[in-house]
Amino acid sequence: MSSYSAQRQDLMLRLRKIEGQVKGIHRMVDEEKYCVDILVQIAAVRAALKKVGSIIFEAHVRGCVRDAIARQEDDEVIKELIDVLNRFMN
Amino acid sequence: MSSYSAQRQDLMLRLRKIEGQVKGIHRMVDEEKYCVDILVQIAAVRAALKKVGSIIFEAHVRGCVRDAIARQEDDEVIKELIDVLNRFMN
Amino acid sequence: MSSYSAQRQDLMLRLRKIEGQVKGIHRMVDEEKYCVDILVQIAAVRAALKKVGSIIFEAHVRGCVRDAIARQEDDEVIKELIDVLNRFMN
Amino acid sequence: MSSYSAQRQDLMLRLRKIEGQVKGIHRMVDEEKYCVDILVQIAAVRAALKKVGSIIFEAHVRGCVRDAIARQEDDEVIKELIDVLNRFMN
Repeated sequence: MSSYSAQRQDLMLRLRKIEGQVKGIHRMVDEEKYCVDILVQIAAVRAALKKVGSIIFEAHVRGCVRDAIARQEDDEVIKELIDVLNRFMN
Repeated sequence: MSSYSAQRQDLMLRLRKIEGQVKGIHRMVDEEKYCVDILVQIAAVRAALKKVGSIIFEAHVRGCVRDAIARQEDDEVIKELIDVLNRFMN
Repeated sequence: MSSYSAQRQDLMLRLRKIEGQVKGIHRMVDEEKYCVDILVQIAAVRAALKKVGSIIFEAHVRGCVRDAIARQEDDEVIKELIDVLNRFMN
Repeated sequence: MSSYSAQRQDLMLRLRKIEGQVKGIHRMVDEEKYCVDILVQIAAVRAALKKVGSIIFEAHVRGCVRDAIARQEDDEVIKELIDVLNRFMN
């Protein structure tokens, strides 16, 4: 069982929607739509992915990280957490 | 014809790959894979979308923006450009 | 004369304020204030710097880039622009 | 005592350097230096601030958050953490 079990359905719906948005951008490029309209869509998908990441991140801290701290085995888990956050901020 | 005609095929390939990556993340969530592995994938898709945006942005400046400046009708086009960039930096 | 001459005073005021905010963060760290309060201040300074960058960027497009396009010497200028934008998005 | 006591000197040195960099940008604007050179400096300061934030964030998780979890009083602390991260990602 994952840390995000309770959010699993919500996350899957969000990802399905994001998949549809990416398909939409693909179509816009195919039909040579106006650049700025495409850029606006890309920014929207990036924001939607940030939201998905933020939900998983919160669940991870409340689940895996909390458990690791309770077991006093948190050193690696926290290193990993900082590392993934630094990637995210790019 | 769009500003990104020359990059259209490359962009469509990139977007097809991104669509596959989003499907992969959907599957990872469905199978309750480890949070951090999912976060790494989300960061990768966000980076790939940034690259697509950057290619379209460059084509837009070299195409639409340049044309508008040549016609001395660039006021709105530049406002729009700054606006979309600010969205992108979030 | 620079592209941002008209915004120069506004930019200098913003940067003076940012300098004060950085001094404030230095003091907070020295006095061992609560981590989250410091992180909020850092996020505020980063946002203020983004705003300064956005003003200079707009002036640059309306000034240097427009002039280079008018002289049909825009190839390097646009490459440089895309390059600095990619740095900014990190 | 703060979570970042061990990093306090390092953080203060970094912030002193950032203050100097902001002063340098102020001077560049005053002397009307080339826009792109200023934008590069702003991106560098934003990256340096992100690094300071990342050090404080890691100390916060290893300190305050861990303690709160050990005391089973982590609900508010984690909410606050997610909130400040979302600000940071902008």
